[in-house]
Amino acid sequence: MPASPTESYACSSLRLRYQEIRRTSLELTQSYTAEEQMLQSMPDASPAKWHLAHTTWFFETFILSEHLPGFRPFDRRYKHLFNSYYKRLGSHPYRGARGLMARPTLHEVQAYRSSVDQEMERYLDTQEPKVDLIELGLNHEQQHQELILTDLKHALWSMPLRPESALTRRELKEPAQMKWIEVDGGIYSVGHSGDDFAFDNEEPRHEVLLAPFQIASRQVSNREFLEFMDDGGYKRPELWLSDGWDAVCAQGWSSPLYWEQSDGEWKEFAYSGMRQIDPQAPVCHVSYYEADAFARWSGARLPREQEWEIAARRGSPKTCGAFLEERREDPQPIGGAIEQWMGNVWEWTASPYIAYPGFVPSAGPTGEYNGKFMCNQFVLRGGSCATPHSHIRPSYRNFFAPAARWQFSGIRLAK
Amino acid sequence: MPASPTESYACSSLRLRYQEIRRTSLELTQSYTAEEQMLQSMPDASPAKWHLAHTTWFFETFILSEHLPGFRPFDRRYKHLFNSYYKRLGSHPYRGARGLMARPTLHEVQAYRSSVDQEMERYLDTQEPKVDLIELGLNHEQQHQELILTDLKHALWSMPLRPESALTRRELKEPAQMKWIEVDGGIYSVGHSGDDFAFDNEEPRHEVLLAPFQIASRQVSNREFLEFMDDGGYKRPELWLSDGWDAVCAQGWSSPLYWEQSDGEWKEFAYSGMRQIDPQAPVCHVSYYEADAFARWSGARLPREQEWEIAARRGSPKTCGAFLEERREDPQPIGGAIEQWMGNVWEWTASPYIAYPGFVPSAGPTGEYNGKFMCNQFVLRGGSCATPHSHIRPSYRNFFAPAARWQFSGIRLAK
Amino acid sequence: MPASPTESYACSSLRLRYQEIRRTSLELTQSYTAEEQMLQSMPDASPAKWHLAHTTWFFETFILSEHLPGFRPFDRRYKHLFNSYYKRLGSHPYRGARGLMARPTLHEVQAYRSSVDQEMERYLDTQEPKVDLIELGLNHEQQHQELILTDLKHALWSMPLRPESALTRRELKEPAQMKWIEVDGGIYSVGHSGDDFAFDNEEPRHEVLLAPFQIASRQVSNREFLEFMDDGGYKRPELWLSDGWDAVCAQGWSSPLYWEQSDGEWKEFAYSGMRQIDPQAPVCHVSYYEADAFARWSGARLPREQEWEIAARRGSPKTCGAFLEERREDPQPIGGAIEQWMGNVWEWTASPYIAYPGFVPSAGPTGEYNGKFMCNQFVLRGGSCATPHSHIRPSYRNFFAPAARWQFSGIRLAK
Amino acid sequence: MPASPTESYACSSLRLRYQEIRRTSLELTQSYTAEEQMLQSMPDASPAKWHLAHTTWFFETFILSEHLPGFRPFDRRYKHLFNSYYKRLGSHPYRGARGLMARPTLHEVQAYRSSVDQEMERYLDTQEPKVDLIELGLNHEQQHQELILTDLKHALWSMPLRPESALTRRELKEPAQMKWIEVDGGIYSVGHSGDDFAFDNEEPRHEVLLAPFQIASRQVSNREFLEFMDDGGYKRPELWLSDGWDAVCAQGWSSPLYWEQSDGEWKEFAYSGMRQIDPQAPVCHVSYYEADAFARWSGARLPREQEWEIAARRGSPKTCGAFLEERREDPQPIGGAIEQWMGNVWEWTASPYIAYPGFVPSAGPTGEYNGKFMCNQFVLRGGSCATPHSHIRPSYRNFFAPAARWQFSGIRLAK
Repeated sequence: MPASPTESYACSSLRLRYQEIRRTSLELTQSYTAEEQMLQSMPDASPAKWHLAHTTWFFETFILSEHLPGFRPFDRRYKHLFNSYYKRLGSHPYRGARGLMARPTLHEVQAYRSSVDQEMERYLDTQEPKVDLIELGLNHEQQHQELILTDLKHALWSMPLRPESALTRRELKEPAQMKWIEVDGGIYSVGHSGDDFAFDNEEPRHEVLLAPFQIASRQVSNREFLEFMDDGGYKRPELWLSDGWDAVCAQGWSSPLYWEQSDGEWKEFAYSGMRQIDPQAPVCHVSYYEADAFARWSGARLPREQEWEIAARRGSPKTCGAFLEERREDPQPIGGAIEQWMGNVWEWTASPYIAYPGFVPSAGPTGEYNGKFMCNQFVLRGGSCATPHSHIRPSYRNFFAPAARWQFSGIRLAK
Repeated sequence: MPASPTESYACSSLRLRYQEIRRTSLELTQSYTAEEQMLQSMPDASPAKWHLAHTTWFFETFILSEHLPGFRPFDRRYKHLFNSYYKRLGSHPYRGARGLMARPTLHEVQAYRSSVDQEMERYLDTQEPKVDLIELGLNHEQQHQELILTDLKHALWSMPLRPESALTRRELKEPAQMKWIEVDGGIYSVGHSGDDFAFDNEEPRHEVLLAPFQIASRQVSNREFLEFMDDGGYKRPELWLSDGWDAVCAQGWSSPLYWEQSDGEWKEFAYSGMRQIDPQAPVCHVSYYEADAFARWSGARLPREQEWEIAARRGSPKTCGAFLEERREDPQPIGGAIEQWMGNVWEWTASPYIAYPGFVPSAGPTGEYNGKFMCNQFVLRGGSCATPHSHIRPSYRNFFAPAARWQFSGIRLAK
Repeated sequence: MPASPTESYACSSLRLRYQEIRRTSLELTQSYTAEEQMLQSMPDASPAKWHLAHTTWFFETFILSEHLPGFRPFDRRYKHLFNSYYKRLGSHPYRGARGLMARPTLHEVQAYRSSVDQEMERYLDTQEPKVDLIELGLNHEQQHQELILTDLKHALWSMPLRPESALTRRELKEPAQMKWIEVDGGIYSVGHSGDDFAFDNEEPRHEVLLAPFQIASRQVSNREFLEFMDDGGYKRPELWLSDGWDAVCAQGWSSPLYWEQSDGEWKEFAYSGMRQIDPQAPVCHVSYYEADAFARWSGARLPREQEWEIAARRGSPKTCGAFLEERREDPQPIGGAIEQWMGNVWEWTASPYIAYPGFVPSAGPTGEYNGKFMCNQFVLRGGSCATPHSHIRPSYRNFFAPAARWQFSGIRLAK
Repeated sequence: MPASPTESYACSSLRLRYQEIRRTSLELTQSYTAEEQMLQSMPDASPAKWHLAHTTWFFETFILSEHLPGFRPFDRRYKHLFNSYYKRLGSHPYRGARGLMARPTLHEVQAYRSSVDQEMERYLDTQEPKVDLIELGLNHEQQHQELILTDLKHALWSMPLRPESALTRRELKEPAQMKWIEVDGGIYSVGHSGDDFAFDNEEPRHEVLLAPFQIASRQVSNREFLEFMDDGGYKRPELWLSDGWDAVCAQGWSSPLYWEQSDGEWKEFAYSGMRQIDPQAPVCHVSYYEADAFARWSGARLPREQEWEIAARRGSPKTCGAFLEERREDPQPIGGAIEQWMGNVWEWTASPYIAYPGFVPSAGPTGEYNGKFMCNQFVLRGGSCATPHSHIRPSYRNFFAPAARWQFSGIRLAK
């Protein structure tokens, strides 16, 4: 019995999305050498080559090995080798040793990708492919696209011989004004609902009671963050959480990550070298601790994730920041006067990452995807210039440890 | 002009409370030698002598030095020496070096206490003593009374020559049944209100929207926790948060802290030596990770702190566990069939420790008391056998890092 | 004025040696990918690519930059980048970060080598090239050839995906008997003399007074070391130096490095995979601690370096073990009955690495070559299967920290 | 059969020595509180109370338990508790946890000492007491007397509340001139011989061949070391061994241990507080690395231990520095013009601590006393102001790791 026309159309669309997303991962890495794609500059970051392999492993392990009759793995050793943290699948290599994966070579990893892609094409031709798992695999790969970019940025910056292209001086835009948006208190629904894809941690949709609040119309700019720095922000313990102050002292933080001062001017590292800070662009590469301290210094606070979601869903004219599709190296300056939501930088919220009431992790090994990390992390919202536009939505919950700075993470204020 | 009769009465009552609480701290330590009171067995724990001095420093620094005319400090060096973490007062010694405070001697610390107590008596005679600060100081000292007990327990257990008194075999009680209490959903108020003392982190009282839930009538017992252990609880990663599993592996956890197996029987360390586990007593000295894993294993979850507070405040017949006043060495077995709330063991909740909506830290240095720790910790509720009964209340929020096990911390389930 | 015929001949010979040694370094690495040549598996080891660059840097820095008129460096940043530890030349990158040198690429490093080689050809044509510095550079490069092999071996073994070629079973030879060689006591001269090249640490030649001693005619075999293991050698603290026993416990040593037991059989890792131990081959990849413990267990001791040198220079028929020129992957089995000296494995001596009486380091930055390491290391003698035959001599003093195991290091006994 | 008159006299003399040495240990600690005697300020140092107990354990374990009929131990748990590192006696507590020995109390340790002393008296009355073992125990205790002083000094200095007695200004003496003593080359005998007590590591006496050398007539003074500091000694890597320079950078050394600069003046910590440096006193509390760097800076070198011993034994008029018997807190200024040998500060030699040719450790557990530490340490000679005069001799070999600074260790030059 043939698939129904609708199914057929859905599958055809899914096939196109599969091809496009898989191709994008390769495009993001193609200008880097095999040596650069092997760099692991800290245990939290992974080599680009590893990301290319691990995302492929995801399709192979959870779909092809389970659901494609007659499937034979490309290399039986990869099941263990490219497992990130799925304990139910058995052991996996120590995370900090990913930089030692000279084998397989980049060339072999690319062949592995091609092989799995061919088998996935074959699987998409079967009668009832597991659409949900494929969607999960594609969203998983999109997440790793962002990590490819953030991890590469950290690696390039960590190399004893950093890229140092001559960068032309930027033209700086006129500042856009920040406004306070008023939102009424009341009972609101938050979380994902509907048939389109979402991660398990965005569900179930549920009601929350919010007090009235104000939230900023845009992200905090470099100019504003420089004022905090100039006012001794990194030297005043009373502005910081206790753990944050310990991090400032232990790590010697005195600016966002990737910033350096030379000749009296602040510069930041992007993929091809150091360049001038654009005061108008959103501040980026700050930890939760810095976001929190900045908010305290400015007499405001960070929004809770529910406040953020309600405000972002409101029906007023909005614009977006940059997304991955635009291939901008960093967040873009904020112009105009209307609200800006989504894109440019992830925004730290004041909400620790915990389960929504009634949360149930997915069944099977993919249940290890989100739930087991609900501890010691904070929620970020909105996506960044390294996030695919097709990947993000208002209910999306990203999460990182409060000291993490290598993501494209910034600040929005609330009161 | 004399104080009004009411004020006079309040002050007289406060004076009695002051005397009683200060005396209790000494009583808790009096059976330990100067050497034992100097032990610091890990950076998180402090010597008993340090607690005796630091609580005294609190009255001296925030009350006498500020508000008592003509006050002269006992020793000018103590201002720095016994500062725990108040950055606004200047520097303080490294926390991990408290075990090196051979000077001042215990005898000198006791003299310091007497001297400050005399000055406090004098201060209580003044016209308008700062009652709020005195209350804060007394509650602060009560918190340290619990820490004196938990830190001493850890120290005694850590000594190469542990106490090993011959302990008589316990009589074990009949088990009490655990029941599920049903609580309706709706809008509830939580947090502290009223004129009696509360910490700033219990306020402001505010409304929350809760879904209907069930909560256990008593704490989880050792017998129940042994079932988890016997079912491979410490060996199954799928039951654990990722950080929790890392802790299990890195620390080699296979039981609660202070448990040891010998001759096929589990024993636990109390102040005077190892003794038989009482299956009927609440399980104690477990981390948040263990509480969370146990809950997952049993098909339930930990309660949120708001659920806990609402349930504990309900108007049904209740009994309490042990408190400090009873001088029991550990949580007591649970008998009878009615609900048990408060006392015995602190109960880990599923709620990260964050600010209530509208939270404002106290002004001045005491503002560092609670707010700056609102990160990377979880809320515990209810008090323990080492908590003064007069210190605890349903709105009380205790907090510790999720890996902490040396407090009297246990588990209550919810669904 | 043209160079004299002799000089010309010497230069021509030197030119040939230069070409041959430089070519050998490339040959040793040519079967490894750019990714494999970037591996740094521990801070003590360096990537093969780094060795290729650093040996080139040596010629560029100490010869071309100083002595070739009109020389322009290939890349001005390399002066800092490929400095290993010469403080007098300014700063250098942190040693443990050599694995982050994705840039320059292997291709660029090879171009750097070619460029410097061309300039060195030009320099060799000048009137009075500094022959001593060139010799030093060549000997330096030969030392790094050995390190290329030992560091690569450790890297390949450390990869999560190790090489695992199917290895054919070896044919095992008949054992050769070990004999004790008697050497008379008396005053002997040790150290280098003469015009041929030697490192500064081999000089000055000086007299020593030795008591009569016995020394083994060959290196200890795997078979003999297995007897030590079977006799509980790794479990008996009384056989070990205190620091050695600490290393056994902390590192969990229970065999030489690279050994693994499977199916009741000991195997060892070589470059292309695990393979059967040859009981007749010299034991290899043992630390000083293991060598010392083995000697104590066997009722003997390790020779002092002076004893070794006197015995090796004696005029009796001798054979050699394997050297780099033979391109054997590991030490070769010992056959026959005559003495074996030099080659196969470096031999730990009982002598800490210190200055000979009257030692004077070379002038200038090359004075940092040897002298500043005369502390906390032990002398090894004789060269190994990874040492060029043209590089070794009886007065040669190699040195490593007593816990090092990744060199081709073995044992000879004395009494 | 009664003991012969000679034996009887020897025993009576030994009894007196026993009493005197045991009493001295108590005297050294008597002015410190139980809390101070429990301090362990770093893993290398031990609490004074532990030294008092461990020296007692030595007599109990190696003499009374083995050789006194009917002996019953004071507390059976002490056998394990106060074992320092004798693996052949079974396990022992982790060295870094000695500061957690609140139990037994100081009072109990003193009772332990009395009890063992009484039993030793009884043992001395037996027919043929093991004189050699008693001598070993007494020399062991004398070594620990020095450690009591050096460990207490480090502990007092490490306390957050250091002693800070008002110290009177010293009168500074006139400088004594340093002379170079010429010693001929030739064959010399070194090491201990004769019937009086010596440690096994001082034997066997053996011949060495020495080249002619010059050695300084006295120890390097603070004034001379200040010149080294003023000349950038701590900032010039070319003066240092590689490991030494790493220590300078990692530990931030810029002066000897215990020195601090205030108001432009260098002061040093002694037991009761900071006080002015005496330029004329020998420099003290320097590591081997600092001694070696100073020697290189001054165009000289450190003496080898054989050179030191030969020079110290020469028959010329000599004077000594301070010893323990004088109860001086630190090395004394050097006056006069004749040679000074022995006392004041231990002198680092250029000799790694290794076995003399023919060395055989003592049989039994006491064989772990010296031999197993013959690795990674350097020999010091001559004794210090904390060494009993009756304990030291020219053949005495003390040894410490090259980074150690908390001993009374100084410098003598050679050429």
